[in-house]
Amino acid sequence: MSVADPVANLQALIRCPSVTPAEGGALTGLETMLKPLGFTVERMVASEPGMPDIENLYARIGTDGPHLMFAGHTDVVPPGDEASWSHPPFAAEIADGELFGRGAVDMKGGIACFVAAVARHIEQHGAPKGSISFLITGDEEGPAVNGTTKLLKWAAEKGERWDACLVGEPTNPDVLGDMIKIGRRGSVSGKVVVHGVQGHAAYPHLADNAVRGALSLASSLMDPPFDTGTPEFPASNLEVTTLDVGNPATNVVPEKATFAFNIRFNDTWTADTVKAEILRRLDAAAATNPLRPGRDSTRYEMTWADRPSHVFLTRNDALIGSLTASVKDITGKEPKLSTTGGTSDARFIKDYCPVVEFGLVGQTMHMVDERVAVADLETLTRIYGDFITRWFADAVIR
Amino acid sequence: MSVADPVANLQALIRCPSVTPAEGGALTGLETMLKPLGFTVERMVASEPGMPDIENLYARIGTDGPHLMFAGHTDVVPPGDEASWSHPPFAAEIADGELFGRGAVDMKGGIACFVAAVARHIEQHGAPKGSISFLITGDEEGPAVNGTTKLLKWAAEKGERWDACLVGEPTNPDVLGDMIKIGRRGSVSGKVVVHGVQGHAAYPHLADNAVRGALSLASSLMDPPFDTGTPEFPASNLEVTTLDVGNPATNVVPEKATFAFNIRFNDTWTADTVKAEILRRLDAAAATNPLRPGRDSTRYEMTWADRPSHVFLTRNDALIGSLTASVKDITGKEPKLSTTGGTSDARFIKDYCPVVEFGLVGQTMHMVDERVAVADLETLTRIYGDFITRWFADAVIR
Repeated sequence: MSVADPVANLQALIRCPSVTPAEGGALTGLETMLKPLGFTVERMVASEPGMPDIENLYARIGTDGPHLMFAGHTDVVPPGDEASWSHPPFAAEIADGELFGRGAVDMKGGIACFVAAVARHIEQHGAPKGSISFLITGDEEGPAVNGTTKLLKWAAEKGERWDACLVGEPTNPDVLGDMIKIGRRGSVSGKVVVHGVQGHAAYPHLADNAVRGALSLASSLMDPPFDTGTPEFPASNLEVTTLDVGNPATNVVPEKATFAFNIRFNDTWTADTVKAEILRRLDAAAATNPLRPGRDSTRYEMTWADRPSHVFLTRNDALIGSLTASVKDITGKEPKLSTTGGTSDARFIKDYCPVVEFGLVGQTMHMVDERVAVADLETLTRIYGDFITRWFADAVIR
Repeated sequence: MSVADPVANLQALIRCPSVTPAEGGALTGLETMLKPLGFTVERMVASEPGMPDIENLYARIGTDGPHLMFAGHTDVVPPGDEASWSHPPFAAEIADGELFGRGAVDMKGGIACFVAAVARHIEQHGAPKGSISFLITGDEEGPAVNGTTKLLKWAAEKGERWDACLVGEPTNPDVLGDMIKIGRRGSVSGKVVVHGVQGHAAYPHLADNAVRGALSLASSLMDPPFDTGTPEFPASNLEVTTLDVGNPATNVVPEKATFAFNIRFNDTWTADTVKAEILRRLDAAAATNPLRPGRDSTRYEMTWADRPSHVFLTRNDALIGSLTASVKDITGKEPKLSTTGGTSDARFIKDYCPVVEFGLVGQTMHMVDERVAVADLETLTRIYGDFITRWFADAVIR
C-alpha cells in the first residue's frame, strides 16, 4: 500500500502549489490517499463576502467511538523569491537526505506522516477500534476565517463528536521529540490614541503634549509584569509594537500620539479579565502621570483588535500520556510539555475536545529552502502509529 | 514733519509686500523716512551659498556716545489665504479704529512708532545728545542666517559700538504696557535613535523591543523637572516633540524607535551644561530601565540640532529703569519684566550691548487679519519718545 510511505505522500502534496487561498490540488491529492483506506471524504467549501472561497476537507473512517481527530492544513505561505531556493519550492526534490519544498514541515509533512501511520495501522491491526478523522483546512496561513472554525461548526452540526485531537503542526524547536504543545497562551491586540492640545514648545503651559500622556500609558502596560507565569505557562507578556506621532516641527508640541500593543497571556487571565486589567492600568496612568503634573486625566481612546485568541490548556491524561509515551519509546527523548509560542488552530478545536500538538522540527518553516530530514518523516510516522495504537487501547479500556 | 505720524509710517511700510526673503520696498521706504531726519543710511546685502541674498539696513544719527540702537525687521511671514482676510494683507486699511495688514504688530508697527518718536524728539529737542541707530534686517522670519548676526558683525567691524539696544518686537500679551522682555531662555534640540532587536511578539525574549528603550529614555528627559526656575526666569522645560516607530505589524517587535526633543532652559544652565545633563539622564535611563529588566544597557544615538540658542538676562538699570518709567508714565501700568516666550534676535544683540524688548500687543501676529489699534500706535510712539529722552538724560548723567 503506497500511502504507507510518508516520503511519497509528502512529495505528492508538495507538488500541489496550494498557496493560500488556492487549493492547488492538495486536498484532491489527500482525498486520493484516504479513500482507498476506507475513509468517507467530504469537501466543504466556505464563503465569506469579499473573501475568496476556501476548500476544506473532512474524512472519517469508522462510525463508533472513541473518535480521534487529526487536524491540520494543506495551504502554505508563498515561496517568496523562487530563485533563492536551492531546489524549486514545489518540486519536492530530495538531496543529502533532506526533502525540499514549501510546506515540508508546515505542515504537509505532518499530514503525510499521519496518513502513512493510519495506513500501516490498518494494514497491521485492521480498521481502528473506533473512528479516525482528518479535519484539514485550506485557510490556516491566511485570514483563518473560512477554515477550521467553520469546518468544526459544520461537522458538529452534522452530529460529529470527537474524543481527542492531535494537531500536526511543527512543534519541535531542534530535534524530533523535543516538545509537545498542550496549550497556548491567549492573544489580545489593541490601539490607543492619546489626545492633547497642540501648541508652541516655548509655551508648554498653553499646550498639552500628547507624548507625555502616551509615554506614561504605554509604559504602564509593560511594567510591572502581568504575572510571573503558572506551572504550565510562561509569564504573560505585553509588547507595545509601535508608537507614532509624526510631528516634524521641533518647536511644536503635538496634540496626538498613537500606540499599538499585543499581549500573550496565560491561564491567570481570560481575554475579558486581561482587557479589564489593561483598561485599569491605562486609567491609572491617565489619572496620575508624573510627566503631566497638575493636569486633568489624560484623554485617550482604546480600540480592540478583532477576535482575541483565548488561552487554553489541555488536561487529558489519556491523550497527553499516550503521545508522551509514544515519543519516548520511538525517539528515546522525554518531550517537554509546552505552552509557549504563537497561536494555532488548536485554539478553535479546544472548544470541541481535548487537543495537543505534535509534528516535525519547525526551524525552516516559512523560510526559503523549507525542508525536512527524510529520516524524520519515518520517525514521525512511527510515533503517530504508536500513538494511534496506544490511544485506542487506552481510550477503549477506560 | 510727516514721519512724526506712526500711522502714516506703518501704512507706507505695510504696503511694501516684504515677505521673507523679499525686500519689497520696505527698507527703501524706511530709508526715505530716515534720511530727511539726518540719518546716514547704509544698505548691507548678506549672501550665503544656496540661499537668497538678503537686504539689511543700518542708519545712524550722531557720531558720539552714548549710543542707543533700535533693532528690528521689516520682513514678514506670508499672509496665507488672502481671501480669508477681512482687509487685504498689504492694503493697510483702517476700520473701526484698527489698522489691518501683515506686519502691523510684527513688527513694522514698532519701527513706524520708533521713527515717529525720533522725529518728534528731534523736532522738540534737536539732535540727540549722542547717537541713535536703526539696525533693521530682512531675515528675521526666515532662516535668520543673513540677518541680524551678520549685520551686527559688519557694523562692529566698521567700528560701531552701542551702549544699549531696544528691540521693537511685540512683547505685550494683552494690553500695551503689560510686559518688557529683559532676557530669553536658551533653546537646544536633539534627536535620539534607540536600537533594539526585531522579533516575533510571541517570543519577546528572542527580541529586544526598541519601544521599551525609547519610552524610558524619552520619559527620563521630561521627569523630574530640570529646575524650578530662577528669580528672573521660569522653570526650564523639555518637550519630546515626536516619537516614531512606524511598525504596522501587531505580531512584530520593532528594532528601532526615534524621538526628538526641544528644551527651553533658564540661567541655571548653559547650552553645554544642559546638553551634559540630557546625556546623563539618557545614560542613566539606558542602564537601568524597569521596562527591560535584566537586559544590557539600551543602545542609542544622539544627534544635536545645529546652533543652540544661548540663554541671556539683561541687568542694566539705566536701560530697564528708563523704559519701565516711560511705560508707567504713559500707560499707568507697571510692566512685568519677563523672560518668557520663544527666542528673538535679542539673543544675538546681547553679545554687543545690553538689550531689552518692548513693542505692540502680539495677539494677532502671524495670523490672518493681523492688526493693531490705531490708538496703540500713538501710545507706543509716546512711550518710545519718553524713553529716548529719559535714556539720554540718564546715560549722559552717569
